[in-house]
Amino acid sequence: MRAIKDSVHDYIEVDGVASALLDTPQVQRLRHIKQLSTVRLVYPSANHTRFEHSLGVYHLADRALAHLDVSGARADKARAAAILHDVGHGPYGHQTEGIIERRLGRHHDDVTDLLADGPVADVLADYGLDPGGVADLIAGNGKLGQLVAGELDVDRMDYLVRDAHHTGVPYGTVDHGRLVRALTFRDDDLVLAEGNVATAESLLVARALMNATVYRHHVSRIAGGMLERASERLLDTSDLAVAAFARMTDDELLAALRDHDETEEFVRRLAERDLYKRAAWCERDAVPEDVVVADHDRVRAFARDIADAAGVPEKHVVVDTPGRPSMPESSARVVVNGDTKRLADHSPLVEGMQHSQEVQWRFGVYAPEEHAEAVGAAAERELGLSGVGDAVDY
Amino acid sequence: MRAIKDSVHDYIEVDGVASALLDTPQVQRLRHIKQLSTVRLVYPSANHTRFEHSLGVYHLADRALAHLDVSGARADKARAAAILHDVGHGPYGHQTEGIIERRLGRHHDDVTDLLADGPVADVLADYGLDPGGVADLIAGNGKLGQLVAGELDVDRMDYLVRDAHHTGVPYGTVDHGRLVRALTFRDDDLVLAEGNVATAESLLVARALMNATVYRHHVSRIAGGMLERASERLLDTSDLAVAAFARMTDDELLAALRDHDETEEFVRRLAERDLYKRAAWCERDAVPEDVVVADHDRVRAFARDIADAAGVPEKHVVVDTPGRPSMPESSARVVVNGDTKRLADHSPLVEGMQHSQEVQWRFGVYAPEEHAEAVGAAAERELGLSGVGDAVDY
Amino acid sequence: MRAIKDSVHDYIEVDGVASALLDTPQVQRLRHIKQLSTVRLVYPSANHTRFEHSLGVYHLADRALAHLDVSGARADKARAAAILHDVGHGPYGHQTEGIIERRLGRHHDDVTDLLADGPVADVLADYGLDPGGVADLIAGNGKLGQLVAGELDVDRMDYLVRDAHHTGVPYGTVDHGRLVRALTFRDDDLVLAEGNVATAESLLVARALMNATVYRHHVSRIAGGMLERASERLLDTSDLAVAAFARMTDDELLAALRDHDETEEFVRRLAERDLYKRAAWCERDAVPEDVVVADHDRVRAFARDIADAAGVPEKHVVVDTPGRPSMPESSARVVVNGDTKRLADHSPLVEGMQHSQEVQWRFGVYAPEEHAEAVGAAAERELGLSGVGDAVDY
Amino acid sequence: MRAIKDSVHDYIEVDGVASALLDTPQVQRLRHIKQLSTVRLVYPSANHTRFEHSLGVYHLADRALAHLDVSGARADKARAAAILHDVGHGPYGHQTEGIIERRLGRHHDDVTDLLADGPVADVLADYGLDPGGVADLIAGNGKLGQLVAGELDVDRMDYLVRDAHHTGVPYGTVDHGRLVRALTFRDDDLVLAEGNVATAESLLVARALMNATVYRHHVSRIAGGMLERASERLLDTSDLAVAAFARMTDDELLAALRDHDETEEFVRRLAERDLYKRAAWCERDAVPEDVVVADHDRVRAFARDIADAAGVPEKHVVVDTPGRPSMPESSARVVVNGDTKRLADHSPLVEGMQHSQEVQWRFGVYAPEEHAEAVGAAAERELGLSGVGDAVDY
Repeated sequence: MRAIKDSVHDYIEVDGVASALLDTPQVQRLRHIKQLSTVRLVYPSANHTRFEHSLGVYHLADRALAHLDVSGARADKARAAAILHDVGHGPYGHQTEGIIERRLGRHHDDVTDLLADGPVADVLADYGLDPGGVADLIAGNGKLGQLVAGELDVDRMDYLVRDAHHTGVPYGTVDHGRLVRALTFRDDDLVLAEGNVATAESLLVARALMNATVYRHHVSRIAGGMLERASERLLDTSDLAVAAFARMTDDELLAALRDHDETEEFVRRLAERDLYKRAAWCERDAVPEDVVVADHDRVRAFARDIADAAGVPEKHVVVDTPGRPSMPESSARVVVNGDTKRLADHSPLVEGMQHSQEVQWRFGVYAPEEHAEAVGAAAERELGLSGVGDAVDY
Repeated sequence: MRAIKDSVHDYIEVDGVASALLDTPQVQRLRHIKQLSTVRLVYPSANHTRFEHSLGVYHLADRALAHLDVSGARADKARAAAILHDVGHGPYGHQTEGIIERRLGRHHDDVTDLLADGPVADVLADYGLDPGGVADLIAGNGKLGQLVAGELDVDRMDYLVRDAHHTGVPYGTVDHGRLVRALTFRDDDLVLAEGNVATAESLLVARALMNATVYRHHVSRIAGGMLERASERLLDTSDLAVAAFARMTDDELLAALRDHDETEEFVRRLAERDLYKRAAWCERDAVPEDVVVADHDRVRAFARDIADAAGVPEKHVVVDTPGRPSMPESSARVVVNGDTKRLADHSPLVEGMQHSQEVQWRFGVYAPEEHAEAVGAAAERELGLSGVGDAVDY
Repeated sequence: MRAIKDSVHDYIEVDGVASALLDTPQVQRLRHIKQLSTVRLVYPSANHTRFEHSLGVYHLADRALAHLDVSGARADKARAAAILHDVGHGPYGHQTEGIIERRLGRHHDDVTDLLADGPVADVLADYGLDPGGVADLIAGNGKLGQLVAGELDVDRMDYLVRDAHHTGVPYGTVDHGRLVRALTFRDDDLVLAEGNVATAESLLVARALMNATVYRHHVSRIAGGMLERASERLLDTSDLAVAAFARMTDDELLAALRDHDETEEFVRRLAERDLYKRAAWCERDAVPEDVVVADHDRVRAFARDIADAAGVPEKHVVVDTPGRPSMPESSARVVVNGDTKRLADHSPLVEGMQHSQEVQWRFGVYAPEEHAEAVGAAAERELGLSGVGDAVDY
Repeated sequence: MRAIKDSVHDYIEVDGVASALLDTPQVQRLRHIKQLSTVRLVYPSANHTRFEHSLGVYHLADRALAHLDVSGARADKARAAAILHDVGHGPYGHQTEGIIERRLGRHHDDVTDLLADGPVADVLADYGLDPGGVADLIAGNGKLGQLVAGELDVDRMDYLVRDAHHTGVPYGTVDHGRLVRALTFRDDDLVLAEGNVATAESLLVARALMNATVYRHHVSRIAGGMLERASERLLDTSDLAVAAFARMTDDELLAALRDHDETEEFVRRLAERDLYKRAAWCERDAVPEDVVVADHDRVRAFARDIADAAGVPEKHVVVDTPGRPSMPESSARVVVNGDTKRLADHSPLVEGMQHSQEVQWRFGVYAPEEHAEAVGAAAERELGLSGVGDAVDY
């Protein structure tokens, strides 16, 4: 039995298939992908990786399986899925997932191909586990898929607590011990047992406050936007294949961007935290509906138009349109007076939280400090924004 | 400079008037009053006292005053108020405040008399501070009174974090460092600076979740109800004066209850955690409006009626009607886009939270296990409850 | 399965015999005995109780038993012993154990009588456990007795971490997760597995630093000395039986002391932290050997002599002679290169630590502030101390 | 006033010269240098950087200066030195410092050149601070130099606590609050005030236990040895200049190693944690004296000889000879009974600790798993080791 020391869950015991999977290059690669990509430019301690997170998710899955009284091959499959749930991520995780999805047509949760052969496939075969079955769980399918990727999944429980620990922002410290103990199955639905409405609400609330304070902090969004733009430029102007890009680690991506003339400025700026500034920063009702719903190609076109109008190179304009706020936790199911209810149908908090997320929604255009004013004015004209500097931080 | 080690804020530095006040019997008495009275019967680690809490409130006040750039005698007065803010509490704090208020006509925040003479008055005089002015701050009056007792007071910040630390329930861990730094004055109103809507929401949310999980836990309410009932019985059937009662410590009250025939059973039960059980436990709409709004005398009459109907001694029935849920944090003021707004007027969360508190509201009737069924049935009939066992924990 | 939230170990799961024992009056009584008696007068947050500590010891025992692969009735017996290991303590724990041992001839680890009948005996009988066998484990006898009361026992692991958590002094934070995992049996000896010399040293070091900073802090020793003296006086001048005294809780002892003329001053002083001061405070070589080795009766005679010589009432002199420093951890066994070794025979740290404890040793005479000088001078003459004010804190 | 959230010290306030220095590329570069280089391969959460550590050192320096009552330009100079104290580090910090020192003749604490011009020099000039004076403090010279680089420096206090937080190993959690408050000057010596022998011992003990458990963990040493060997090979077989090497970040070094044929295998192995194994692992008395004291060139020659004898490529043999254990904390000065004493002259712990470090000393030869046996045998013959597999972990 290996016991690995973790700064969040203390010792995590791994053996069998989990231990063997841990030693594969695909899982070891996650040591080199930061969990919170550019958030570290705001919260300097947030340097934790998807490797330690994957260990944590495995740990909570293992605890939950014990409480759910699932054992044997079914449990092994779920444990394998927990360890592997993030191997589909590209460099800098969520920051590049849109690029990869658009160009490769594959979501990071779709790991069917990655598990089909190579060291991971060998390990799964050694333990008699079907790669397709494991991939299904990672995609959230099936009864135990809810535990790996669902409204009440252990992924969420681990990242909230871990991100809180490493940023120092306390809002994410959910009571994972209680959550894991409260999980139970009702007609194949994973639900929280009676007496846990507040437990479910706490999950919702934790993510909403972490969103406002950490995940959507404007400095992190700016750096993230710059990184995404640099990555697209790299793929557009070099012979790097998307498939190879998708397998990179954070440091390999930085090296590739550094070695390429068209993208080298971005890396220098990120390394020195010499970031673009907010040229426009607008609340929801200051942005025309067609801009809000614009797809990626249109957003890229907006950036070109604004750059032209402002007389600056295209690479000096980043347009950032967050999608509509989603709140998967609101679909979490809780037993209330004997009946299974969706949290949104029982807790008056959910609606308030949803409005709150809309109030927090911000549209941004970013540019180097010396161009910010010109770019802001151009954005106002080109996109029909009704105010470019009025919105404030939430 | 004394530096006192605290398990929550690490070293707390006290000197001058604060240090002198700390050594008075009135403040030392707070070492013997638990912060969370009967919550320790649910969360065994919750044995912290109002003394360490008072130190914590002083510490946060001191930090806030530095950030607000308040110094000199005004700051000393506020620091004195922070140290002294809980000296008006009776034994077991909030558990006996209703009794004291009804019989003595004095709220625990009204400490005018307590500061008028004796060691505390001597210290205040030594430092040239007016006792009336300090008492005003403790009552929440004046500009700096908002810091000691208001929607954004340091009392709340300390107890949430401290109660979380000692119960082990993480929901209370607000970011007091950020709150204290965000405090600022606007036209004599204490507000949170621009960019802190989420900070304000976090305070609201923390208290609501702690309410549901800790402060209103039914076991703690039962034990609290028993303690309150025992205290009233002690005052009604012995020659103990209310004024003397109000100055007791927790252990002195227990001793008095133990020494008195009419109340000795309560102490034995509390000591052995041999508590009453829920005879009735109802949601808001299962309780007739006149029962919900009944005053203390009527509630006592309900208990007598139920006891008669069930054929049990009156002391074996405790009726527990929580007041309407209040949410002072919803009046907290935050600067949004340059304007000062009440949180309730800006954050869609507040309304959801208010509904949520109503959903969590519970009416309870408690009795020894062997009488619970009979008492429940009697309560149903006597009070017209529409269901006595249907409500579940939140 | 009950899961109890603990501020140190998070959720502690109890069922079966452990859960039934928890509900007995003997174990519930431990809620009312503080773990660190008078240390709270130095570290205000140190209000934790022997109840939560007993839960923690049970939890670590349960984890250790799983790692040691002990199950069934043997494990149940050890778990019962863990829960019950402190029920033999008198009020204020270690503070009164000398009194009880001298007058009752029973060490607090000898709980044979306490388990022989009453609710605890009933529970043990229900689960088919022999009370004598459980009492043996608590006394440290037998193979599993080492886990409950030995050099590597879980009692030590819990109290170090718990005392650190509640005082805020970090030195006690041993790695209990590693200690529990490293435990193994070698020829019926409980030892730490290969590769754990530093782990064993950490236990030794943690206790030594906690000794110097917390357990032997002079203010706590003064208050403890006053409490012990008051307790003896109570037993000597009232009709309270020692057996009844030994079953009291902290608050019951305070009440008894408060109600008795001869002892009431002590309680008032402790409640208001109006403590005696150091009249003499000497290092080891400033104290004649016969004073160092004096037994309890002689120490009491010293106090009387000093009081007479100084012209103060006997109760105003407390003489405090700590026993020779012991270091049970130095006998802990560790596997080194395949052989089992006593830590003292392998680690050069042990000898240093032993010397260090001697350097820290202090002899004290305490008296009310106004008598301190006279009492100090009298002590110097009467006992032949060579310097009464030279020693400083370690 | 900027307040930066840190996971160890919560908010760290920076302004003036410290804030301006923070934004220079030299300081931002520290975001990309991990504090514990290869320790993360053993403790997966240990991904913290020299940037956050530098912030922490600045914070403790700032606190200490306030307690020492140092203000104005002298304090600013010390604060600047704290922020800048690690800018002289090469990629992977201590892992490459030997290489840089041997080839560049400059210790990482000698930052005179780095502060002479460029953005840092500009900032220092803006605030009227002499770069030479700041460099002196970083080198440990002068009265305040002791605070930045000495036996009682804030560097040590921060890294112990931070490394404990991020590895999860509790031994490093010294009481920095007490240390900082206990610092005082005696005849220009920075000392700990009376009553702090245990405080000083705790610092010594914390580092010794972290050494045994974290800093000298064999897996980390193996990975570190491989990285050092790869770096030397890179410098020996490419046209990379040492000066440029010394300015790299971790990810830039990895990129350079990856792009170079001679070193690419090392990076692949590090990335996948496919590390060399222990071919020989010897205690102090199993190693001939001339091997123990061999300088770097001889150690390199050993590796070549062993590789030849074993018939493997030179790059597949890493010889690891730790220097003699040093213990700077033993020179820390503490006031004892009014006199300033070196800890080693007062505390019996120091000698024990020194012996303990010698017992923990290990000599290692590492090679790929498939060559480990052959390389071990060759090392035994070539170097005259008396046992290559007998030593165990401490």
